[in-house]
Amino acid sequence: MTDDTAARTQALCWDKDALLLLDQRRLPHEVAHVRCASPADVARAIVEMVVRGAPAIGIAGAYGVALAAADAWRLHGAAWRAHMPPALALLRAARPTAVNLAWAIDRMAALIAAPGEADPFPALLAEAERIQAEDLVANRRMGELGASVLGRGCRVLTHCNAGALATAGHGTALGVIRSAHARGQLTAVYATETRPWLQGARLTAWELTTDGIEVCLVADGAAAHLMHARGVDWLIVGADRVAANGDVANKIGTYALALAARAHGTRVMVVAPLSTVDPATPEGAAIPIEERPEEELLGLGGQRHAAPGVRAFNPVFDVTPAALIDCLVTEVGVVHRPTRQGIAELLRRAGAA
Amino acid sequence: MTDDTAARTQALCWDKDALLLLDQRRLPHEVAHVRCASPADVARAIVEMVVRGAPAIGIAGAYGVALAAADAWRLHGAAWRAHMPPALALLRAARPTAVNLAWAIDRMAALIAAPGEADPFPALLAEAERIQAEDLVANRRMGELGASVLGRGCRVLTHCNAGALATAGHGTALGVIRSAHARGQLTAVYATETRPWLQGARLTAWELTTDGIEVCLVADGAAAHLMHARGVDWLIVGADRVAANGDVANKIGTYALALAARAHGTRVMVVAPLSTVDPATPEGAAIPIEERPEEELLGLGGQRHAAPGVRAFNPVFDVTPAALIDCLVTEVGVVHRPTRQGIAELLRRAGAA
Repeated sequence: MTDDTAARTQALCWDKDALLLLDQRRLPHEVAHVRCASPADVARAIVEMVVRGAPAIGIAGAYGVALAAADAWRLHGAAWRAHMPPALALLRAARPTAVNLAWAIDRMAALIAAPGEADPFPALLAEAERIQAEDLVANRRMGELGASVLGRGCRVLTHCNAGALATAGHGTALGVIRSAHARGQLTAVYATETRPWLQGARLTAWELTTDGIEVCLVADGAAAHLMHARGVDWLIVGADRVAANGDVANKIGTYALALAARAHGTRVMVVAPLSTVDPATPEGAAIPIEERPEEELLGLGGQRHAAPGVRAFNPVFDVTPAALIDCLVTEVGVVHRPTRQGIAELLRRAGAA
Repeated sequence: MTDDTAARTQALCWDKDALLLLDQRRLPHEVAHVRCASPADVARAIVEMVVRGAPAIGIAGAYGVALAAADAWRLHGAAWRAHMPPALALLRAARPTAVNLAWAIDRMAALIAAPGEADPFPALLAEAERIQAEDLVANRRMGELGASVLGRGCRVLTHCNAGALATAGHGTALGVIRSAHARGQLTAVYATETRPWLQGARLTAWELTTDGIEVCLVADGAAAHLMHARGVDWLIVGADRVAANGDVANKIGTYALALAARAHGTRVMVVAPLSTVDPATPEGAAIPIEERPEEELLGLGGQRHAAPGVRAFNPVFDVTPAALIDCLVTEVGVVHRPTRQGIAELLRRAGAA
C-alpha cells in the first residue's frame, strides 16, 4: 500500500479540533468526508454508518469521548467529570454488537477517572490517537501472522469489509490478504458483495483494486457454489466480537459461509485485534445481534425494489460457533481451533506481554 | 387465489397471433407486457429474462415453436418442416440450465415429425396450450401433495421465485405454500431476496402479498442465522433440473441454503413437475450451469454500485446434491430422500400413469 493509497482509504483522522470521517456510505462513487465536532456528531455518524467496522467505530468512539471532555471542561471547568456520563452512554449505545466501541470507551473512562485538575482534553485526545496508532500496528502484525498461516498458491474469500476502512489502516482480514499478496502467496481473491449494505462490492472491492490487488465479487449465496466449482482454500473474515469460548460475531452471512466452508474443506480464519475479544461475553448466544431498519434490505441507494407490503428481518450480524473456526489471528498470536481454554491462554499471554 | 389475482400474476398467455409475456424485469413497480410475434422474439425474451422460471420458459419455448411453424408454413408451404431446425435450435439455446425448455421443444418436435400435409400451426398452438394447461394442473396437484407432507404450525422459507410467475400458474414451491396457507398450516413464510436478480424481493414478495399471504424477506446470507434464531421447519424450493440421481439444479444460493438447513434440522423440499426431471442427466455434475453477465451482479436497476475495476463471477444456478434433499414433490407423487432408484421408480410410475 503506497502512502497515497493509505491516505485515500483512511477511515478517520483528527483534524485540528474535530474528527474527520471518510463517508463510507458514498463510496466508491465519491470520496467525501464528514466533520464531527461533538460527541453527538460522532454517535450519529456511527449509527448512520458514515464509519463502520468494529475497530474503526471503537477509535471513533474514543475521539468522541475526547470531544465530550472538551465540551465539559469549557462549560463546567473543574466539575467536568460529572458531565461526562451522558456522552459516554450515548457513544456506547450507538451500535451494540461490536465490543470495540465499549472497549474503547472503557479505556477512555479509565483516564477520565484518573486524578488531575487540568484541562482533560489533551490527555484524552492523546489516548484516542494512541488507540488509533496501536490499531494500525496490530493490523500490520496480524497481517504478517495470518499470512504465515496461509500456504502458497492460496485462493481466499473474504466477506464484508474488514479492511483499512474498518480499522486504523491495513485492515484485519484484508490486512492478511494484503500481506499475503505482497508475499506472492495468493492466486485468487474473492469477495462477497455482502447484502444488504454491499460492503464487499463497494468497500472491499474499492480498497483492493485501489491497492492493485485483483478481486472477483460473488453474490453471498454463490459462495458455496464457488467453493465447489473453483475451490477456496481459506475464508478470511474480521470480527465484531469474539466471546470467551471462541464464538465469533461478524457481519450477517459469515455463519452461512462458515457452514459452507466446513462442507468443502475450506479453512476459516478470523482476524481481530485483542480489543475485539471480550472475556465478559461467555459465548456467542450472549452477544446482542443488532437489527437494522427493514428499509436497508427492501431497497438500495434510496431506491426501493421490494414489492409493497412485504416485511423484512434485517439482522446485520450473526454468530459463527468456535467449532467452525480453524484459527483466530490476533496481534499477540494465533489460536488454532479456538476453545475457551485457547482464548484464556491468549489473554494471559497478552496480559504478560 | 382469486381469479383477478391469477390474471394479474399470469406470466404468459396466447393473445390472437402472438405470445403475451408479463415483463418480469419491471415488477413489482409496473405491470407491463411484451408481445412476441416470432420465435426470435420469444428467444430474446427468455435470454433477457422478460420471462423466467423453468416451467414458464418451457411453455414460452413451446409457443415459440408454434410461431416458427406459422412463419415456415407462410413462407415455404409444404416444405415448412425443413425450415424449422434453426428456430428450434435458437429457442433451445436461449438458456441452458432449465431442462423444461429442451423438454418442451422436444415435445413440440415430436408433433412436427408426425405425418400431415395441412397447416401445422393449429395443432402446434394447441399442443403449446396443452403444455400450459397441464402445467397448471400439475402445480395444483403438487400444491396439495406438498402441503400434505408439511405439518401444522409450520415455518417455511423459500428462495427465488417458484411461483405463478415461474409457471402456468399457482407455482411449484409457492404452490405448496399457497395450498398450505389455504389449509391454515403455516405460521411464518420467509423468502430470501435472491441476489442478483432479486426474484424473492421483487416477484415472490409481490405474488404472496397480492394473494394476501404475509411474507418476510431476509438477505440470502441471513437465512442460516434465521434458522438458528427463529427456526425454520422447511426450506421449499423449485428446480431447474432434477438429475437421474436426484441432484437438483436451482437458483444460485439454493445449495448454500440446503447446507444451512442440514445444520439446523430444517427439512428441504424440492417441488418440480416431471418436465423438470431429466433421466438423461446422470447427476448434478453433468448439468450446465449458466453464467450471466458480470454487470448483473455489479449493479442493480441499471445503477452500478460496485467499485470500478472489480470483476464478478456470476453463476445463476447451483447444484444441491440429493443427499441434502428430504423430499421431491412432483405431480405424480412424492419421493422421500431421493436416490437414483427413487427417481427411476417415480418415472416408471409416471409412465404407467
